[in-house]
Amino acid sequence: MEFVSIIMGSSSDYDVANEAVKVLEKFGVLFEMIVSSAHRSPQRTVDYIKEAEQKGACVFICVAGMAAHLAGVVASKTIKPVLGIPAGGGALNGVDALYSTVQMPGGIPVGTLAIGKAGAKNAAYLAIEILALSNTELASKLKMDREDMQKAVLMDSAKIEVLLKGQK
Amino acid sequence: MEFVSIIMGSSSDYDVANEAVKVLEKFGVLFEMIVSSAHRSPQRTVDYIKEAEQKGACVFICVAGMAAHLAGVVASKTIKPVLGIPAGGGALNGVDALYSTVQMPGGIPVGTLAIGKAGAKNAAYLAIEILALSNTELASKLKMDREDMQKAVLMDSAKIEVLLKGQK
Amino acid sequence: MEFVSIIMGSSSDYDVANEAVKVLEKFGVLFEMIVSSAHRSPQRTVDYIKEAEQKGACVFICVAGMAAHLAGVVASKTIKPVLGIPAGGGALNGVDALYSTVQMPGGIPVGTLAIGKAGAKNAAYLAIEILALSNTELASKLKMDREDMQKAVLMDSAKIEVLLKGQK
Amino acid sequence: MEFVSIIMGSSSDYDVANEAVKVLEKFGVLFEMIVSSAHRSPQRTVDYIKEAEQKGACVFICVAGMAAHLAGVVASKTIKPVLGIPAGGGALNGVDALYSTVQMPGGIPVGTLAIGKAGAKNAAYLAIEILALSNTELASKLKMDREDMQKAVLMDSAKIEVLLKGQK
Amino acid sequence: MEFVSIIMGSSSDYDVANEAVKVLEKFGVLFEMIVSSAHRSPQRTVDYIKEAEQKGACVFICVAGMAAHLAGVVASKTIKPVLGIPAGGGALNGVDALYSTVQMPGGIPVGTLAIGKAGAKNAAYLAIEILALSNTELASKLKMDREDMQKAVLMDSAKIEVLLKGQK
Amino acid sequence: MEFVSIIMGSSSDYDVANEAVKVLEKFGVLFEMIVSSAHRSPQRTVDYIKEAEQKGACVFICVAGMAAHLAGVVASKTIKPVLGIPAGGGALNGVDALYSTVQMPGGIPVGTLAIGKAGAKNAAYLAIEILALSNTELASKLKMDREDMQKAVLMDSAKIEVLLKGQK
Amino acid sequence: MEFVSIIMGSSSDYDVANEAVKVLEKFGVLFEMIVSSAHRSPQRTVDYIKEAEQKGACVFICVAGMAAHLAGVVASKTIKPVLGIPAGGGALNGVDALYSTVQMPGGIPVGTLAIGKAGAKNAAYLAIEILALSNTELASKLKMDREDMQKAVLMDSAKIEVLLKGQK
Amino acid sequence: MEFVSIIMGSSSDYDVANEAVKVLEKFGVLFEMIVSSAHRSPQRTVDYIKEAEQKGACVFICVAGMAAHLAGVVASKTIKPVLGIPAGGGALNGVDALYSTVQMPGGIPVGTLAIGKAGAKNAAYLAIEILALSNTELASKLKMDREDMQKAVLMDSAKIEVLLKGQK
Repeated sequence: MEFVSIIMGSSSDYDVANEAVKVLEKFGVLFEMIVSSAHRSPQRTVDYIKEAEQKGACVFICVAGMAAHLAGVVASKTIKPVLGIPAGGGALNGVDALYSTVQMPGGIPVGTLAIGKAGAKNAAYLAIEILALSNTELASKLKMDREDMQKAVLMDSAKIEVLLKGQK
Repeated sequence: MEFVSIIMGSSSDYDVANEAVKVLEKFGVLFEMIVSSAHRSPQRTVDYIKEAEQKGACVFICVAGMAAHLAGVVASKTIKPVLGIPAGGGALNGVDALYSTVQMPGGIPVGTLAIGKAGAKNAAYLAIEILALSNTELASKLKMDREDMQKAVLMDSAKIEVLLKGQK
Repeated sequence: MEFVSIIMGSSSDYDVANEAVKVLEKFGVLFEMIVSSAHRSPQRTVDYIKEAEQKGACVFICVAGMAAHLAGVVASKTIKPVLGIPAGGGALNGVDALYSTVQMPGGIPVGTLAIGKAGAKNAAYLAIEILALSNTELASKLKMDREDMQKAVLMDSAKIEVLLKGQK
Repeated sequence: MEFVSIIMGSSSDYDVANEAVKVLEKFGVLFEMIVSSAHRSPQRTVDYIKEAEQKGACVFICVAGMAAHLAGVVASKTIKPVLGIPAGGGALNGVDALYSTVQMPGGIPVGTLAIGKAGAKNAAYLAIEILALSNTELASKLKMDREDMQKAVLMDSAKIEVLLKGQK
Repeated sequence: MEFVSIIMGSSSDYDVANEAVKVLEKFGVLFEMIVSSAHRSPQRTVDYIKEAEQKGACVFICVAGMAAHLAGVVASKTIKPVLGIPAGGGALNGVDALYSTVQMPGGIPVGTLAIGKAGAKNAAYLAIEILALSNTELASKLKMDREDMQKAVLMDSAKIEVLLKGQK
Repeated sequence: MEFVSIIMGSSSDYDVANEAVKVLEKFGVLFEMIVSSAHRSPQRTVDYIKEAEQKGACVFICVAGMAAHLAGVVASKTIKPVLGIPAGGGALNGVDALYSTVQMPGGIPVGTLAIGKAGAKNAAYLAIEILALSNTELASKLKMDREDMQKAVLMDSAKIEVLLKGQK
Repeated sequence: MEFVSIIMGSSSDYDVANEAVKVLEKFGVLFEMIVSSAHRSPQRTVDYIKEAEQKGACVFICVAGMAAHLAGVVASKTIKPVLGIPAGGGALNGVDALYSTVQMPGGIPVGTLAIGKAGAKNAAYLAIEILALSNTELASKLKMDREDMQKAVLMDSAKIEVLLKGQK
Repeated sequence: MEFVSIIMGSSSDYDVANEAVKVLEKFGVLFEMIVSSAHRSPQRTVDYIKEAEQKGACVFICVAGMAAHLAGVVASKTIKPVLGIPAGGGALNGVDALYSTVQMPGGIPVGTLAIGKAGAKNAAYLAIEILALSNTELASKLKMDREDMQKAVLMDSAKIEVLLKGQK
């Protein structure tokens, strides 16, 4: 039973992580979400990865702020794709988390998304794109979703656009 | 016939892209590599994506520097996973390419790796991890590769380590 | 019928784009303004550029935030001058949008203005300066506007300045 | 007699400015190029702007490094379009020049290009795009140049691309 | 009649500039304060410098934000000491103003203080230290002020300090 | 009588410093806390270091913002371990304080913690780890505290986690 | 038998780590130095920490570059003081390693030193200051070393100083 | 006997400091130059300031890199104007030194110049401008020097300028 595993480094990352949840739910993709810190609960983090893999986790999404080591620590313990979301906030407003997540040295990859909520949303999308490689139903849903996005742009535009004729 | 497609924004990105090639070759993963610019050859880029998908491309790896729009442009045209490698060099040494690649707005994800060669190496690893979800042979190779990495660390250490007894 | 085309990547860029509108209206310069995303509605963006050119668009002003690819994508599809406004906000507060807009590689230029509202105002001014090259009436208006700016500075100063004689 | 005026803040900016010259010469666009500093020769700078305008300057391209005030100072004295190129080098490697050039407050615009040589090349391209608005011959040349760029990408790709068939 | 001249680039810099005023008033140092922009009122700025010098201005303090050219423009027109205060605010929060003020190329110096109010306060202090070189009364006041600062630290500490004995 | 000495550069650093106090009190570690500025009360700072050492200070924790010289100045006057906390706030939001604290040249070390409250908390923890090297009771408390942290993570997770079974 | 344990994330960090070794050897402090990566050899890293503690490790010094997770991972597994040295090099020249090391969230401290060799030197000094708390001989050596530093400054100065009399 | 005192934090700052020396010698301004570190020789630094003041030092120029505390420490001990030059080099290439020098909190000013050699040159110029307030001969020299700068710009321009006629 394939699912996406979401790990937050702290419960304060919930609002960010929840953006990923919304997308996964919209696509009907099974997921788990837990809190486990790379630093404050290192053993639990390692134990959970194994356990999640045995249950069928096929993509890990990690959300962490500041010196965000969580995605790297998870990536060091699994060969499943690991996606990292740098949480914003704090004095450096997420640049620290971005660099700590994206600048992984060669051999242990973390696919990194944007800082904060946009990144969480996109981590879910990327996870779904990965699952859709072997799931044509998900692929169809992704294509329809892209069409919906285009329609949403058109509707957004319609509300505020000024065309030449309106100008006279 | 599944393969990984590597697109460079400029032939000057070859040295970076080649790090991905080395990893893919080591794992025996089929790939293509072309040069196509988001800005100087926009139509070719769009045409190539369609064509590559039809031939079986299942992951796109994009390498570009400066205002690196390539990965985002590719991602806007496919629902396959797109991985972005910010090329270093230039006045801002890759920070411009990193921000242009990783800070994608919600809906169109680009999984971003480190700036330059380490990122290229890891983009290939991440692509292989994605393919390995439905390819047990690749999964086995990845596990063996992790063991090799650990052995390599031990050998590196053996050459320079100083243990307590050596200290007296 | 010459006009300036303003494209926003998202309806959330409206407040910024509107600063350009105010200046264009003040100078009586014809314009259009639409929402179209480089990523979420790529085909619409490309289609619109052609259509706008046929209607007489002679300068494009693009507003986008985060990994702001819009101006670059537009520039890749037209030989009309393209001006880019990096929208602020987000975790990196517009530095990502600035680098994504200004650091265009050689061959496909984007004239970039300041982050946010000041940039939007100046994009309109620069567009008008461009149109004024072949429109002496606009040129006269620009000269008068510069004089007005100087007077405004004097009036601003008059309200708060402290001259030596006031000091005794 | 329309021409493009290039002003360098220092003779050390010559290599950067020369990238603009090469493009202008390729398109057969008339230009002038002088050295004049906003700080070390402020009067000459102001005098030159007037004189150049009288001779027919219709676009100003300014190259300066560090606290690059040149483009802003020129823009404060003309209503012709002013394009700014932040020169790289120095301890901050051009970020200082970029911020000093692009972050102009509302009312006095400077269209800013990338740091260093790529920016200089693009400043010339943007100047030509501006002139081409009322010069159909230049417009044709720009279109042909875009086609040449696309061909150059194809040729670059041909030298290093690896297609699937080459892989077997 | 020696005095300190304070020039703001915009009336929005008043709150920052006022911190300098407070210090000058506390020390009884004569000053002027006007608004004049390097970009929107360039001629007024140049005219004012000459006029101020003739009236006895011996130090210029310039406050400006964003691409803060004011201090550099003033420095290019006088051999009196020019002190620059980068105003904060805006998308880059004053880093743009700092780099635009401090990174002056060799030959035309601007003594730069901290971003915002602390910088304005210190610009006044530095101006007074300069005047005090030939004014023993001011020098005495500065020494007393330093003693007052030390006392203020002691009093601040007394309110919140926890000494060992208080710990038991 | 061993104790930890906390020095703030300004009373405005109290909220940050207090995070260190809370941890020290929780572990029952004796401490002092005073305000003394490297710049406004340099002699008091130097005098206090000597005095504190004589009373038994064995670790110094310094909190300062902006051009944060306090930790470096203290370190130059003692061979006891000095820990530095960059205070956030101000235009640069603590990056200035971080660089001013951590980038000490070789020979005079300052162990630097994160910007702001997290750093203050960790400075206290690091001080306790240092004291625990020769205090087995403190060492036991630290071990228990780590276990408490792990339990707190579990409890945090329990409140928001979504397990697979909850998903159906 | 107390000793300092130095862990490098990669053998390429040897030159940096060796600066710490030189200082420890100069003071006659026992140490170990190994290579172990937080990502490529996570189990070895965890195993080594336990083993080193049993042998008497009382301070850990960790050197790592890019997304430098090593010091944080070590700190999560020990209550001994952990000192982190961000290795320079790479596209971001050590800023990534600095932020990844210093911005640890509350509870698990890493005392961070400057980027690169200066930081390695100071990590050794700080480790010695910690050991000297319970080792009066080391404390004496540190005091003598400080005196030597002062003498070295005097000698450096003597070679290049220009006193007033030399000026005539 | 008035003179300018130059203090370097390390003998490695000599090349930077020497740029100030060249300017002072050109204007015939008396100076001293010594090495004294804020951290490695704090007492010598404090002692020297007093001594230099008694001999007639009227401006202090401080050159230091990394966590550059020297100018701030000097400023805390004198009411003479203190000018700070952030030395470049090191991993952060002088941004650390810039922030450590310019971001002084209110009350103790350091007039900061550009990073590295340009800053050293300008520190000397600013010192001379300060001395020239009460030295008409120096003022005349400064005016002549400005004229020389303008001529130098003209000569630089003459070598590389391209006027319209040269274009045909």
